[in-house]
Amino acid sequence: MRMTIKQLVSFLKKHFPQVADDFIVHISNEDRLSVEMPVNEKHLRPGGTVSGPSMFALADVAFYLAILNKIGPEGLTVTTNATINFMRKPKLETLLAIPQIHKLGRHLIVGNVLISTLSDPMFEKPVASASLTYSIPPKRETS
Amino acid sequence: MRMTIKQLVSFLKKHFPQVADDFIVHISNEDRLSVEMPVNEKHLRPGGTVSGPSMFALADVAFYLAILNKIGPEGLTVTTNATINFMRKPKLETLLAIPQIHKLGRHLIVGNVLISTLSDPMFEKPVASASLTYSIPPKRETS
Amino acid sequence: MRMTIKQLVSFLKKHFPQVADDFIVHISNEDRLSVEMPVNEKHLRPGGTVSGPSMFALADVAFYLAILNKIGPEGLTVTTNATINFMRKPKLETLLAIPQIHKLGRHLIVGNVLISTLSDPMFEKPVASASLTYSIPPKRETS
Amino acid sequence: MRMTIKQLVSFLKKHFPQVADDFIVHISNEDRLSVEMPVNEKHLRPGGTVSGPSMFALADVAFYLAILNKIGPEGLTVTTNATINFMRKPKLETLLAIPQIHKLGRHLIVGNVLISTLSDPMFEKPVASASLTYSIPPKRETS
Repeated sequence: MRMTIKQLVSFLKKHFPQVADDFIVHISNEDRLSVEMPVNEKHLRPGGTVSGPSMFALADVAFYLAILNKIGPEGLTVTTNATINFMRKPKLETLLAIPQIHKLGRHLIVGNVLISTLSDPMFEKPVASASLTYSIPPKRETS
Repeated sequence: MRMTIKQLVSFLKKHFPQVADDFIVHISNEDRLSVEMPVNEKHLRPGGTVSGPSMFALADVAFYLAILNKIGPEGLTVTTNATINFMRKPKLETLLAIPQIHKLGRHLIVGNVLISTLSDPMFEKPVASASLTYSIPPKRETS
Repeated sequence: MRMTIKQLVSFLKKHFPQVADDFIVHISNEDRLSVEMPVNEKHLRPGGTVSGPSMFALADVAFYLAILNKIGPEGLTVTTNATINFMRKPKLETLLAIPQIHKLGRHLIVGNVLISTLSDPMFEKPVASASLTYSIPPKRETS
Repeated sequence: MRMTIKQLVSFLKKHFPQVADDFIVHISNEDRLSVEMPVNEKHLRPGGTVSGPSMFALADVAFYLAILNKIGPEGLTVTTNATINFMRKPKLETLLAIPQIHKLGRHLIVGNVLISTLSDPMFEKPVASASLTYSIPPKRETS
């Protein structure tokens, strides 16, 4: 059922070719998935900080990969709701996202993503916190 | 205090050069601001629908422009919180966003953005609904 | 399918006896539902303003009644997600909530509720804005 | 600066007399604050599950106490934004909430609250997850 890190990366490359190269996926030996996003000029907004949509994209991809890792290549699950709090302004530094699934239901998958910088791997000063809901389309039941 | 549509567009081009060309800004004769985002391949995700981060970016820009339109070129206001509900899957069609400011406080600006497609200009079947909070940095008070 | 105002009120009284008396339901001749909540001491918090949970309860009931009004006595729909922005501090005054349904799907119902005071019936200075998602339990399909 | 558990409870009793008795506050020897809410008939809604507003109230109080515990008796901080995901339907059982502060800024305080039941103290099947933002009123600076 699960997907390995190699399968996750090739799934991303196949289905999201336009963004796949923006992210680096890790799975720790304790089976904890994390996603890095090296930040460059295209992610910035005035003030030299990372833009909201860039951090949203990171949170969304990290949570999507956590779902794939749990339920397999279900390409058509879609985000139905996302809330994101931007807490600190990160500079031009690689961001690190850790997703956590709180509920894996038949129709809805709910969880959080915490985003920090590589220089704060313990998330003592997270830059953003998101909570996301994905829905699994009904057609899945018949496939 | 206000910015005209011409000023808004050149502000976008100057401060957000990487995305300015993705959006078309309108202000109606009743002074209602709306933003169009022509959708192309780069906005899509599996299933041929517009990706969440693309719609988030549209909501964020539309609300930001509505603020600029009210308080002038305050480039450093930042999103502190955003919630977005994805309600329908739009196809490869230009999206239309209408922002609405509910509160313009000294520190916080709060409002909503409704997103539809150009073929549904009355928002009878909106594709997404966002509520956003922007904060005005303290330094503004001294400038 | 729809429920009249009389049916809505008796549904509330039967299923939510502990709160039914806290709310007054209106349906305008243009078929617009609104809910009033007369505020008293039990709704207040320090500073003499209405507490967050009280406003949340108003938003939740208003949206629930809007759903009942559309799909009938479906007592088991449940809130899955709610976001509420508290924008102004209302004093000891009756609150007014107007719900709006943006999507009425098979599984999920999504919309907003705007809350103001009776002295601001045009919602020029709303006190709170909520966006809610309700889910319709699968069992409904077989009943 | 901090408030002890005894101070927290008497602060609640003094400023929120109408709800203070609904909650039990704990602080572990590792300085982790948690709040219990014994559930009774008044918290229920159709289907015998705990109502959304009751869980919202628990999340709000738990986060508020976590703030008081950090910054002292600042009675006038107010919730500006709250998002809550209802994930499972708890039965008539005491609920347990654990707040976590991610950012303690000059103007805004941001964090999460996870809610579970007493029979699931490890939060393996949380019933709700909230993210909250409180603001500290400007007047605090001069006091």
